[in-house]
Amino acid sequence: MPNPTAAMLVIGDEILSGRTRDANMHHLAQELTKVGIDLREVRIVSDDRDAIVSALNALRAAHDTVITSGGIGPTHDDITADCVAEAFDVPIDVREDARALLQAHYDRRGMEFNDARKRMARIPDGATLIENPVSIAPGFSIGNVHVMAGVPSVFQAMVASVIPTLTGGAPILSQTLRVDRGEGDIAGPLAQIAADFPDLSIGSYPFQQNGAYGSNVVVRGTDGARIDHAMARLSELFPA
Amino acid sequence: MPNPTAAMLVIGDEILSGRTRDANMHHLAQELTKVGIDLREVRIVSDDRDAIVSALNALRAAHDTVITSGGIGPTHDDITADCVAEAFDVPIDVREDARALLQAHYDRRGMEFNDARKRMARIPDGATLIENPVSIAPGFSIGNVHVMAGVPSVFQAMVASVIPTLTGGAPILSQTLRVDRGEGDIAGPLAQIAADFPDLSIGSYPFQQNGAYGSNVVVRGTDGARIDHAMARLSELFPA
Repeated sequence: MPNPTAAMLVIGDEILSGRTRDANMHHLAQELTKVGIDLREVRIVSDDRDAIVSALNALRAAHDTVITSGGIGPTHDDITADCVAEAFDVPIDVREDARALLQAHYDRRGMEFNDARKRMARIPDGATLIENPVSIAPGFSIGNVHVMAGVPSVFQAMVASVIPTLTGGAPILSQTLRVDRGEGDIAGPLAQIAADFPDLSIGSYPFQQNGAYGSNVVVRGTDGARIDHAMARLSELFPA
Repeated sequence: MPNPTAAMLVIGDEILSGRTRDANMHHLAQELTKVGIDLREVRIVSDDRDAIVSALNALRAAHDTVITSGGIGPTHDDITADCVAEAFDVPIDVREDARALLQAHYDRRGMEFNDARKRMARIPDGATLIENPVSIAPGFSIGNVHVMAGVPSVFQAMVASVIPTLTGGAPILSQTLRVDRGEGDIAGPLAQIAADFPDLSIGSYPFQQNGAYGSNVVVRGTDGARIDHAMARLSELFPA
């Protein structure tokens, strides 16, 4: 049985403008791989309503799970929750349980729970909250879509609480063989091994080091014995 | 006049599996920003023919320019050139000028120009080559699509040679004000400034440092005087 699939939607002008580097994608990719969920696609779109809604609808139709990051804070450019409500065609308003969480948080800190902060309690109808142990303002899940914050510490906490709720597959295992020869030298035999092991994914990732070419050959799959077998073939063909 | 738009298509299982972090997106985002081209969307897809072809067709229809990275090496998992030919519905075969470049390169190094390496001379009909000063195997441009290698040093060299050929817009300028207050405190006045400067993009990017909340407010646009004006308003509202 093939593993379940996932997609990620990153909402953020700051990444597309080159101002910051995304850190969440790499984290999510690693966490999903551990539980046997196949991250098939990532899209990064700007803080634009139409772009977010149409990407979200395309991804949630094509994949078992969609995880979004970014755009759920209190400022005017945080429009993700409204876009999700629009994509699902459900109403959105301040929800009492989310409001109460935030109210208690700001009361404890002696900070004003103003209108901007109340925006973070706006949750589409029918969603369930995702806990935020870092800064309280919750994410939410609706249908197969999980809406998380973009701040990496918060994103990671939300991923940790959502992943156990997802249906995983067989964990994806991998082994890597470093070959100190150019890809062009190894491509022929490598294609033969890939053909002999159609149940495995065999990738070649070239590098250059001190002026010499090499490649990391990565064998991935769910059957450890088959991976061992393919690695043995590779080691024979490309001895260190 | 709005600036031209661009999209990027990253082809690579190794990023989706969490094995490596993409470095090319950040570089391209910064280079496009310098010449006033608005990077609107990035998609990362796996080494899968249907996924590549359909993403490419969607992006090239929606944006002025599309830049791809990855999948043009000599190994069996390098299928980008074939997918581009399929998307444009044109034939693909070994092309003489590309073949001659590679032949001379391997002759100079005393290496065999084998069938795997000849695959790197397969170019869709009607494309023009993109020079590769690092490892010779060329990229290519067809229609509004520019196909580049995934190895960062090669990708960067190809970006440097293609960008001068693109129609740019007014360079996008930006200034950042660091505000040592939580986003919830500044969101109200910030929304007012964003409304007063509809020609600028005003984003708020929260951070946490030593347990305290802060935000970087970034003002972007093409008119330096307007940005100065907005920054002066921001500095008045949120003094250091």
